[in-house]
Amino acid sequence: MSTKSLGEFDLIERLFAPLAEGFAGALNLKDDAALVPVAPGCRLVVTTDALVSGVHFRESDPPDLVARKALRVNLSDLAAMGARPLGLLVAACFPKSATQDWFKSFARGLAQDKAEFGVPIIGGDTVSTPGPFTLTVTALGEVEENQALKRSAAKAGDVILVSGTIGDGALGLDALEGRLGHLFEDERKWLADRYLLPRPRLELGNAVAQSRKAHAGMDISDGLLADLAHICKASGLGADLRAADIPLSSPARAALKADSRLLGRILAGGDDYELLLTAPPSAVPALQECAQRCRQNLTAIGVMREGEGVAVQDSSGQALPVHDMGWRHF
Amino acid sequence: MSTKSLGEFDLIERLFAPLAEGFAGALNLKDDAALVPVAPGCRLVVTTDALVSGVHFRESDPPDLVARKALRVNLSDLAAMGARPLGLLVAACFPKSATQDWFKSFARGLAQDKAEFGVPIIGGDTVSTPGPFTLTVTALGEVEENQALKRSAAKAGDVILVSGTIGDGALGLDALEGRLGHLFEDERKWLADRYLLPRPRLELGNAVAQSRKAHAGMDISDGLLADLAHICKASGLGADLRAADIPLSSPARAALKADSRLLGRILAGGDDYELLLTAPPSAVPALQECAQRCRQNLTAIGVMREGEGVAVQDSSGQALPVHDMGWRHF
Repeated sequence: MSTKSLGEFDLIERLFAPLAEGFAGALNLKDDAALVPVAPGCRLVVTTDALVSGVHFRESDPPDLVARKALRVNLSDLAAMGARPLGLLVAACFPKSATQDWFKSFARGLAQDKAEFGVPIIGGDTVSTPGPFTLTVTALGEVEENQALKRSAAKAGDVILVSGTIGDGALGLDALEGRLGHLFEDERKWLADRYLLPRPRLELGNAVAQSRKAHAGMDISDGLLADLAHICKASGLGADLRAADIPLSSPARAALKADSRLLGRILAGGDDYELLLTAPPSAVPALQECAQRCRQNLTAIGVMREGEGVAVQDSSGQALPVHDMGWRHF
Repeated sequence: MSTKSLGEFDLIERLFAPLAEGFAGALNLKDDAALVPVAPGCRLVVTTDALVSGVHFRESDPPDLVARKALRVNLSDLAAMGARPLGLLVAACFPKSATQDWFKSFARGLAQDKAEFGVPIIGGDTVSTPGPFTLTVTALGEVEENQALKRSAAKAGDVILVSGTIGDGALGLDALEGRLGHLFEDERKWLADRYLLPRPRLELGNAVAQSRKAHAGMDISDGLLADLAHICKASGLGADLRAADIPLSSPARAALKADSRLLGRILAGGDDYELLLTAPPSAVPALQECAQRCRQNLTAIGVMREGEGVAVQDSSGQALPVHDMGWRHF
């Protein structure tokens, strides 16, 4: 059954309106806009990301996973600022070929992550496109005034910290595309899952912001090197990274052991959605305790310094050649 | 010069960052998200609309006008709720064929309307697409608690009011596509301009909300009939419209005089972006004064009643055949 028989309004009512349940200001998705209460003393935090089939996800990725990834990359931007999520808007441009089953899978993915993160879908738009499936998600959150983590606040001498492990997303894409044949199947699957379903570090980001112990923060989406370069540029500083200290998952470690050239992929590949923080050395123990309370790790991987650009040293202290290795959107 | 040489970050810095000037919480568009202060006692109002080339605008429409239309249809959704705009997020999926001139035109359009409406662009995303140019705008506004205009609040006996004139947008598209040859060129141009550049009724919407005199409200984007049907459905009521009372511009009146079949187009064509309100009869004079203070008109065109559906009478009191004439998104 084609979607021609399923109008936008029926679709919204049947599949999307339940996603707004429990959020009065969504007005059952029946109005032109949603009403969002922001707590006194808080700033609204808002971010938007567009994902295009064939560019930001593979055409063969199932619609429920695409929906969940789109929500999660936006929630990760809230986490990067230390914000608590309030709601999500989903503007979806559906290809004409989309079937009812496809729509149901898409809505199921939204519902799963609404439940997993406790964040309602409070609005959006559904339109038809002659082009590829395109999904623009806007995430709204709130953070106490003056607690938001920003890119521009790093200081020389700050320790550079990352949450979780780096490179799994990029290696996961490699695994999905049939590379990394030297890994076990369960390792490839684990990595692929990290690519398909990022873990926004919402609890950790909010705890770090509330602790007021970190200077700068962002999430790693374009790749560790490119995103650290963003912090450098915004803060007017440079950074020294120690490649050997970058935390790796055991599948990533196995992949790197088999092919040392994958280090570039790990450093620059993107799709990590981990937090990248800078903090004075004295604050590191408190931040690491904060992470443990959130059942996360924060690993020190380098230092902010005067100057500009990101330099990377290998385990013997040799400089690794770093070009502009980050993901570029064009 | 192709955009391949103009990375996303350069583009944002050179063309888009100036659009955020004057709004501290946009952080010069350098962070993952923007920080928005919402006034105490107000609710945030948020809406998002996606526009696709070839679907919501013509492929030949110049990028500056497309940018302005995308901003304006979202501002119109804020106006429909009675909200004052705070800021806009622009997520743009650019076709690979876009040139630097194209980008400059696009940014110029955003800048023009930033100036015209005093609303900064506080964030967004720019990505490449193999498909058509696709633009998703999110508009943020604020409205005093309990003052937002909603679709579901109409009461039986309410007078139905519209701002401005109806049908100009749809006839403007006709004019652009070479129809309406019986009109003078300046009439066709005037109508085309209404299609290309909607006028969001922000001042009027906010004044109506603050007056607390109206029951229900929305903007007319899908067409008068379809949008009135939305109010009917959301409020559990029906509506009687008097076709002869619907306010028409003089080019629309000339078009209708030459071809009476255009009435269906005027009633159902969409792209009006005027306000559609319902209010008790006793409140109509105060609302019309309120409109005059905003240099606008509000015209009474019918009555809400028990029952369901929208009925339309011609000037002799005969029922006009009304099918499901609104714009459907699929």
